[in-house]
Amino acid sequence: MTAASDARWLAAAARLALKGRPASNPNPAVGCIIVKDGRVVGRGWTQAGGRPHAEAMALDMAGEAARGADVYATLEPCAHRSPRGPSCADRLVEAGVARLIAGVVDPDDRTAGLGLERLRKAGIDAQAIACPHSAASLAGYLTRQRHGRPHVTLKLAMSLDGCIALADGTSQWITGEASRAHVHSRRALADAILVGGGTWRTDNPRLDVRLPGLDRRSPERWVLTTQAIEGVQTIAAPADITRIPAQYLYVEGGAQTAASFLAEDLVDRLEIYRAPILIGDGLRAIGGLGLAELARAHDRWQPVERRSLGPDSFEAFERSRQGD
Amino acid sequence: MTAASDARWLAAAARLALKGRPASNPNPAVGCIIVKDGRVVGRGWTQAGGRPHAEAMALDMAGEAARGADVYATLEPCAHRSPRGPSCADRLVEAGVARLIAGVVDPDDRTAGLGLERLRKAGIDAQAIACPHSAASLAGYLTRQRHGRPHVTLKLAMSLDGCIALADGTSQWITGEASRAHVHSRRALADAILVGGGTWRTDNPRLDVRLPGLDRRSPERWVLTTQAIEGVQTIAAPADITRIPAQYLYVEGGAQTAASFLAEDLVDRLEIYRAPILIGDGLRAIGGLGLAELARAHDRWQPVERRSLGPDSFEAFERSRQGD
Repeated sequence: MTAASDARWLAAAARLALKGRPASNPNPAVGCIIVKDGRVVGRGWTQAGGRPHAEAMALDMAGEAARGADVYATLEPCAHRSPRGPSCADRLVEAGVARLIAGVVDPDDRTAGLGLERLRKAGIDAQAIACPHSAASLAGYLTRQRHGRPHVTLKLAMSLDGCIALADGTSQWITGEASRAHVHSRRALADAILVGGGTWRTDNPRLDVRLPGLDRRSPERWVLTTQAIEGVQTIAAPADITRIPAQYLYVEGGAQTAASFLAEDLVDRLEIYRAPILIGDGLRAIGGLGLAELARAHDRWQPVERRSLGPDSFEAFERSRQGD
Repeated sequence: MTAASDARWLAAAARLALKGRPASNPNPAVGCIIVKDGRVVGRGWTQAGGRPHAEAMALDMAGEAARGADVYATLEPCAHRSPRGPSCADRLVEAGVARLIAGVVDPDDRTAGLGLERLRKAGIDAQAIACPHSAASLAGYLTRQRHGRPHVTLKLAMSLDGCIALADGTSQWITGEASRAHVHSRRALADAILVGGGTWRTDNPRLDVRLPGLDRRSPERWVLTTQAIEGVQTIAAPADITRIPAQYLYVEGGAQTAASFLAEDLVDRLEIYRAPILIGDGLRAIGGLGLAELARAHDRWQPVERRSLGPDSFEAFERSRQGD
């Protein structure tokens, strides 16, 4: 195998991993592909609730074909035994695979290189190569491991001039049907969804997933407020998101909530829907950030995705953080 | 010639026409290509000050090869004699061309179909086919003919959340170097440039073209203000742009000027530069538009161009007007 084909198989495993998001929570959504003589003999992804693991599913599919095969896993295979079954490292040894390529070394203390070590000791050519696709597909898990909180996506839907509503609050509709359907598909990728208390009381939003076949994928609803609200869970400050048992938190506004998350640098990804309209003196998308100089605003957001949604545009930006 | 190849040659002529913009003013910037046996034997575009015309330049280049050739012109050839020389229709007849395909029928009363008629009477197969590229390349001329005013481009440079400056007015720099160079290249395509009185007094902008080789292309400067200002010409209201002797007016702000042009529906093209930064409670790109309902904001702006400029994005939108 060449380095280029290793990278391609890992990227394919990362796409597969997306099938496990967000149902794998609290486990990472891993993807695994087993290749023998250039053909895929097994593939798997972390199942709902975290078991079976991706490697176990792929090994079950491959059966005897796994012997001597190359295994691509987005995350280093686990090395710790659990009451729910043997570790993936043990299963890979038992299956007699020849190589294991991981896209990310598991930062979990219980693995952290031990998975690769276990395989090498058993004579398997096990290595990790830095795979950005694998890392991106594990963003929620890695954010929890590194920062002890969910990965946060902030969604903004606005006019070309950055308004989210007319001055009187009217916001139905700025963006079109295709954008609204896309928002529902993004909600379905989150474990938890949050709005501010003002938005909750004013708009009374359902915050659910209204797409055929995905209606059971509605994330747990949270509200940022100091008051108790029946039927939803609440936090009083953005920093309290450590308490939300999610890998992926989707924040839908309003402007003060957006500003409070941004001011505390708790946003990892921005998703902006823009309609080709001008409003002028409407309500702003984001409240005060307390920005003292323009230079401090630069070099924070990298564009990572762009598409047209009917007349609207969708753009995603990710926060560039040193060390991530 | 097939209809498809006719359309392609007209599109090529429209690209050529751009060379004449804005120096051709007050004449339209026309492009012309003469094709014989599938090969280009002549090409031309309207020269500075309006003469020679594109067809005359192309015929001079083609010489005897023009006899029996196909001529593609973005605009119907002129039929009126002028003290500055014979009409293009007369010159085409004299050259003995076989066909003439025009992209736009000239709305000028002195031509308005007479150019095509003159050619047909001389036995030339002369016709107009609607060519959107030709029409776009003649936007300034057509806007003057139809609305008696220059074609107006409104430029906005903003953050992702629609701010053009910090709350204290600091705006250097929101967009990056590549965006600023692009702005200069756009200024070089305008006959006139305008800012509001507030921007003029606060920023003291040079509004010139600072690009190698294009420094003589700086447009005439105008300020929207009720006060006299030394060294620049002024208008007191957006509707006064009928007085500006330009085909292309480039409006650079500020927010109140942008709003006043938009509120009077005097903007034909929006050019938006966006830096990947968030400002929050900064100054808005556009002042109040007096918009009463969201529905009225829709279906006005069509996206026509998008590109990346370093970390920034550039997007152009054109106003959809019935009958244009």
